Amino acid sequence: MTSRFLPEQEIRPFSPPERLLLGPGPSNVPRRVLDALARPTIGYLDPAFVTMMDELKSLMRYAFQTHNALTFPVSGPGSAGMEMCFVNLVSPGDKVIVCRNGVFGGRMVENVERCGGIAVTVDDRWGEPVDPNKLREALKANPDARVVAFVHAETSTGAFSDAQTLCKIAQDAGCLTIVDCVTSLGGIPVQVDEWGADAVYSGSQKCLSCAPGLSPITFSDRVVERVKNRSRKAQSWFLDLDLLLGYWGATTRTYHHTAPNNGLYALHESFLMLREEGLQQAWARHRHHHNMLRTGLEAMGIQFLVKESARLPQLNAILIPEGVDDKATRTRLLSEFSIEIGAGLGELAGKVWRIGLMGYSSRADNVLQLLSVLERVLADAGHPITPNTALDAAQSV
Amino acid sequence: MTSRFLPEQEIRPFSPPERLLLGPGPSNVPRRVLDALARPTIGYLDPAFVTMMDELKSLMRYAFQTHNALTFPVSGPGSAGMEMCFVNLVSPGDKVIVCRNGVFGGRMVENVERCGGIAVTVDDRWGEPVDPNKLREALKANPDARVVAFVHAETSTGAFSDAQTLCKIAQDAGCLTIVDCVTSLGGIPVQVDEWGADAVYSGSQKCLSCAPGLSPITFSDRVVERVKNRSRKAQSWFLDLDLLLGYWGATTRTYHHTAPNNGLYALHESFLMLREEGLQQAWARHRHHHNMLRTGLEAMGIQFLVKESARLPQLNAILIPEGVDDKATRTRLLSEFSIEIGAGLGELAGKVWRIGLMGYSSRADNVLQLLSVLERVLADAGHPITPNTALDAAQSV
Repeated sequence: MTSRFLPEQEIRPFSPPERLLLGPGPSNVPRRVLDALARPTIGYLDPAFVTMMDELKSLMRYAFQTHNALTFPVSGPGSAGMEMCFVNLVSPGDKVIVCRNGVFGGRMVENVERCGGIAVTVDDRWGEPVDPNKLREALKANPDARVVAFVHAETSTGAFSDAQTLCKIAQDAGCLTIVDCVTSLGGIPVQVDEWGADAVYSGSQKCLSCAPGLSPITFSDRVVERVKNRSRKAQSWFLDLDLLLGYWGATTRTYHHTAPNNGLYALHESFLMLREEGLQQAWARHRHHHNMLRTGLEAMGIQFLVKESARLPQLNAILIPEGVDDKATRTRLLSEFSIEIGAGLGELAGKVWRIGLMGYSSRADNVLQLLSVLERVLADAGHPITPNTALDAAQSV
Repeated sequence: MTSRFLPEQEIRPFSPPERLLLGPGPSNVPRRVLDALARPTIGYLDPAFVTMMDELKSLMRYAFQTHNALTFPVSGPGSAGMEMCFVNLVSPGDKVIVCRNGVFGGRMVENVERCGGIAVTVDDRWGEPVDPNKLREALKANPDARVVAFVHAETSTGAFSDAQTLCKIAQDAGCLTIVDCVTSLGGIPVQVDEWGADAVYSGSQKCLSCAPGLSPITFSDRVVERVKNRSRKAQSWFLDLDLLLGYWGATTRTYHHTAPNNGLYALHESFLMLREEGLQQAWARHRHHHNMLRTGLEAMGIQFLVKESARLPQLNAILIPEGVDDKATRTRLLSEFSIEIGAGLGELAGKVWRIGLMGYSSRADNVLQLLSVLERVLADAGHPITPNTALDAAQSV
């Protein structure tokens, strides 16, 4: 009887192809991290596991540049991290200023509304950073706002905003801040304590080069205080900070939900590698390979979406050259050269490509491989290119 | 400046001990699954990844015994799967009958309330199965109920309930059903279509013996219809079925959230192993090793919490013998013999141990090792035991 539901096709163990991942994430995961992922599973309350968790939290504080006691990995991807911030900080009727200059700012508005909050948007053009003056004005016009939310590094556009200034403006208006650092952590400076940011989340699969599916997060003591004093439970049980405090925050650990043990081994290894390299060295590495890529692309006559001062070194949104087919080119890069780059999202679909040089993918050999392949593929597509100019230019950086 | 936040302790790559995992989960993860976990990460929209996802969905339909089109893994642990069911099926004001006979039924009540629903509980003693007559009466008294929720296999007590009968009663009253199969899937029959269940979720780390952190889930067409016709968005963006339909349900895939790629490789391997073994063989294996364990434990004079007809073969809640120290014994098992068994949860804390024989952990050698160690440890703790009776009894099964 159970044979009725058997799969019709023959299924064998999955053997993924080796890809060079130069899109908006995931980035290539180094063997050290993959090996960590495959270590034996142990229980969540095993003393050895608890020790590992404590180390992980301390490594995360270094990466986030914070003393926040409540710093831990959410058991879900970046969008779960985002939702954890909103469900714990926004109660029905709360007014939240959301700065929106790309897809992920838009997702924040969705989150506010689903929490029963009132979202006031501060809009900037996609590809521009958030304009601090507009935030100042919005706060003046909405003195009852309780929270300001913005995206530090917009994965959909490759632009970063001045988090320090935005946090300062929010604080001066008595607001808590929610900051999306999914694409920034490990690639450009994220300085939670210096910014005075309150709820900051990231993703495992960008500049940390860990396997996808976890969201490192950190909360200020101001958040803990607000959560402890709220009169109403968070609308999510899974993401309730008050309950999670008992597992990640306490000295005697209470079981809350099943921790993704093997994923946490890998995250521990990723953060350890970041600590071994050093944050400043990691930032400089991302900057350097971006410069190589930029120089090479410019030698091919390719232009960036974002102005130089707001450009993320780890995520390069470039305008697709006139007459070049978006989909066909990306498909050829993947099928023939096993290189993944990212398509445009939302209103930028068909207009830009997003080239990620994140974490372990941010390496000179990767830049040179991509430029070399792009030269060929774009020339075939009729884009005027003098052979090797891009490579020569990049190598001179 | 960044050195201010450096960890004080020296941190090295994490090397977990090898444990024999005989608690309520995680179970031991076989090398085949760990190896799958460590394969190279690729993009979520990579054609190779999409093919793997399609295979995974088809393997999951076999495990759940269903034709449901909407069958996929939630990117979070079982409690995220639970929450996905409630946020999509329960709107504010909806009345939900929750059958509660352990910790996880209690968590369902929490979920209903956080969705703004009204929970009517049908309570049974912890360790007892859900009484169908009580559900019938509750539905008679609450003709406006829209949903019935219950736990098929209570991880906190080791008792299972008659899912088929409970689903039938709910359907006759015009209710949709939410069924927790976290601990049952792969260990005892879960027959979604035959039951006529509507929203059924499980966990990766129990009888599937995959790494923890994912929740296989399946929804009937009735759920899809209700979701499509609802007037109000789900309160969770991350768990919104309507949005997820575009990624897991559609032919042209739209990016929703970051998929936990490597975890999905491992889940594919786990479900493939279950398909290779065959469901009926897996159920028989769990039954057989339970019989060995039961016979051995009974020879030691140890008693079960749950009556035989409602006992889960994969999760054995046994009464801690009089005079034996709960914590000290479990600590000795772990530190000296590297065997993990589970403590009691909630009102059963200090009263029972939970011995899991789930998935890959359900093996004869594991049963014999545990019995042999328990004989020794309990004898040392003053429990009267004739050496080797337990082992001899178990081996005669």
